[in-house]
Amino acid sequence: MEEQSIRVELSQSKKEKPKAVELVFGRIFTDHMFVMDYTEGIGWHNASIVPYQPITLDPAAMIFHYGQSVFEGLKAFRTKSGSVQLFRPEKNMERMNRSNERLVIPPIDEAFLVKAIKKLVEIDQEWVPDAEGTSLYIRPFIISTEPFLGVAPAHQYKFIVIMSPVGSYYKEGINPVKIAVENKYVRAVKGGTGEAKTGGNYAASLKAQEIVEKEGYSQVLWLDGVERKYIEEVGSMNVFFKVNGEIITPALNGSILPGITRDSVIHLLKHWGLPVTERRISMEEMYDAYEKGELEEAFGSGTAAVISPIGELYWEGKHIVINECKTGELSKKVYDTITGIQYGKIEDPFNWTVKVCETSKVK
Amino acid sequence: MEEQSIRVELSQSKKEKPKAVELVFGRIFTDHMFVMDYTEGIGWHNASIVPYQPITLDPAAMIFHYGQSVFEGLKAFRTKSGSVQLFRPEKNMERMNRSNERLVIPPIDEAFLVKAIKKLVEIDQEWVPDAEGTSLYIRPFIISTEPFLGVAPAHQYKFIVIMSPVGSYYKEGINPVKIAVENKYVRAVKGGTGEAKTGGNYAASLKAQEIVEKEGYSQVLWLDGVERKYIEEVGSMNVFFKVNGEIITPALNGSILPGITRDSVIHLLKHWGLPVTERRISMEEMYDAYEKGELEEAFGSGTAAVISPIGELYWEGKHIVINECKTGELSKKVYDTITGIQYGKIEDPFNWTVKVCETSKVK
Ligand SMILES: Cc1ncc(COP(=O)(O)O)c(C=O)c1O
Ligand SMILES: Cc1ncc(COP(=O)(O)O)c(C=O)c1O
Repeated sequence: MEEQSIRVELSQSKKEKPKAVELVFGRIFTDHMFVMDYTEGIGWHNASIVPYQPITLDPAAMIFHYGQSVFEGLKAFRTKSGSVQLFRPEKNMERMNRSNERLVIPPIDEAFLVKAIKKLVEIDQEWVPDAEGTSLYIRPFIISTEPFLGVAPAHQYKFIVIMSPVGSYYKEGINPVKIAVENKYVRAVKGGTGEAKTGGNYAASLKAQEIVEKEGYSQVLWLDGVERKYIEEVGSMNVFFKVNGEIITPALNGSILPGITRDSVIHLLKHWGLPVTERRISMEEMYDAYEKGELEEAFGSGTAAVISPIGELYWEGKHIVINECKTGELSKKVYDTITGIQYGKIEDPFNWTVKVCETSKVK
Repeated sequence: MEEQSIRVELSQSKKEKPKAVELVFGRIFTDHMFVMDYTEGIGWHNASIVPYQPITLDPAAMIFHYGQSVFEGLKAFRTKSGSVQLFRPEKNMERMNRSNERLVIPPIDEAFLVKAIKKLVEIDQEWVPDAEGTSLYIRPFIISTEPFLGVAPAHQYKFIVIMSPVGSYYKEGINPVKIAVENKYVRAVKGGTGEAKTGGNYAASLKAQEIVEKEGYSQVLWLDGVERKYIEEVGSMNVFFKVNGEIITPALNGSILPGITRDSVIHLLKHWGLPVTERRISMEEMYDAYEKGELEEAFGSGTAAVISPIGELYWEGKHIVINECKTGELSKKVYDTITGIQYGKIEDPFNWTVKVCETSKVK
């Protein structure tokens, strides 16, 4: 297949950019977006960068009814020198294709889309903020657009990329969060769509999230859907525990989203020569470790927050306070290293960053 | 809360209606649609019947990302006398509110929406076809429209009703279908969203459906997500088995969609004094019954097909042929009775039908 070219239609006017202090997550979008269509028999075509604009769909468009969709989330960072870079974008496109496979959506050309994202970020480079902890959040997504009522894979799709300048995802910043273990609701189960990044998983999570928030917790810790014993994820993050010097994270079992931050954390820990294990972990095991005084740290990992230390876990009436509810040393070190690489403050030994443009006009 | 009034804006032109033989499921839509908006602080408002038209949304609209949506499906039928009637529409609105509850979508006013649907059908009454087995399929649905990237319940929604004149859902008609038992993929699990009518459940089902279709089966029989032993549903239908004179259907367990046809079938069987049981049924038990020659009939139930006899079940290498792959007597009787009531051919002892309008111009 010959690589597509990308048609570019620049916006006639530029929106006002928010001040660093006004940055919230996911509310403001840049001047342009990337769009590409899929039609059965033609394939993906019509790759374009166009002014950010509404999309118009038939009310019978399948996305409104049968949820056939996938998405990704990654970030562009402004370095001290003013240049802009991405973090492991090829991993996001790779995961998107795995999600596509599960959702019966036609595969995308990963390398081409990394290029398209780079081009879009380059065009909107002034939107990459430079204040500490800020970045440009990039959201590629695919929706089924065919107007048809019937449970079947669609014959038409749209691939879209929109971008939003963001501050920190969590109001608490790098401070530890309080998490409640969920016993009633289930996010995903083996054989389901848990390892794909698709809307339905997030829709399923809202109810439990709503309940724990009312009780003062910021996220849910999900247990497995079969035995309701084994730890899966924390909200929209993967999770790590440090027990007696060993770092443990749930093994990818079919219902856990394979996080790119998770992968980066594991790489980093191994690089540092620390013992890291991917395996099944029951909540009971963690509670036992806590009682023995061996549960040293716990943290979530994800693109939005990077690392989110867990200060307290609530489980079956028990309050498990971890590291006196302070950010642990390891959590801090992992956070500083990953963000250090992302913002170009420290060396990037793994070639994780992808340069978009050298220096650009400051926003 | 005072009941809303419905603004009506009639279409300036009328689309051409398909001929009875051209009717396929869910491809052609009527001249009008019902729309209503939700905004936090205001509630549901702006109820309108407008010409069928595309909807325009921000690309950040939450429905495209986090799948927060619910839908319903019911039908309007043309009786012999020319009048038009609905089948248990209040049940659909009731179920929609249960789905809303699970998906953290604000509740709707059920009685008002039954009225709105009646009004919409009345306006488009010429679209209710009159050929044998045809009907007007009605699709109410709710989508989250707020432009926001963040996993949380939306503050803005749209409730829409579109309608499509339909022939039979299954190309096979009332003839028995071949079904394959699914061992790898899971549709829903207890604690998940299986009992809600939400897009994610259908997105999750596509992969298994695609695989069995390639092998010549028309639908998947879903087993429970925990033990992978117990029968849940067949494709998008509930399922019934007749074993040694007793009619058995899986009990609603939290992961099964509570079908309105299912409820009607159970009512009918009880009315006839037949033994009907709702309980857990393992695939093994059905296989044993088959081996003993006691598995007399099996059928799926749903709005689209009403009753769909199962001629063959494929399970772990075994081909379970039921009633010589012919439509069973009971299946036929249930089908004839429910469709008889729906089309006003026979008496409606349960008050299931709701008249929309007396006689109308033939389409
Ligand atoms: C359910 C879930 N788990 C984990 C993650 C972390 O993945 P990543 O590190 O790729 O952002 C995400 C996405 O952010 C997620 O949505
Ligand atoms: C998953 C599923 N099960 C069962 C049914 C049957 O429900 P009803 O009889 O209300 O149409 C449906 C909907 O049609 C469905 O989507």
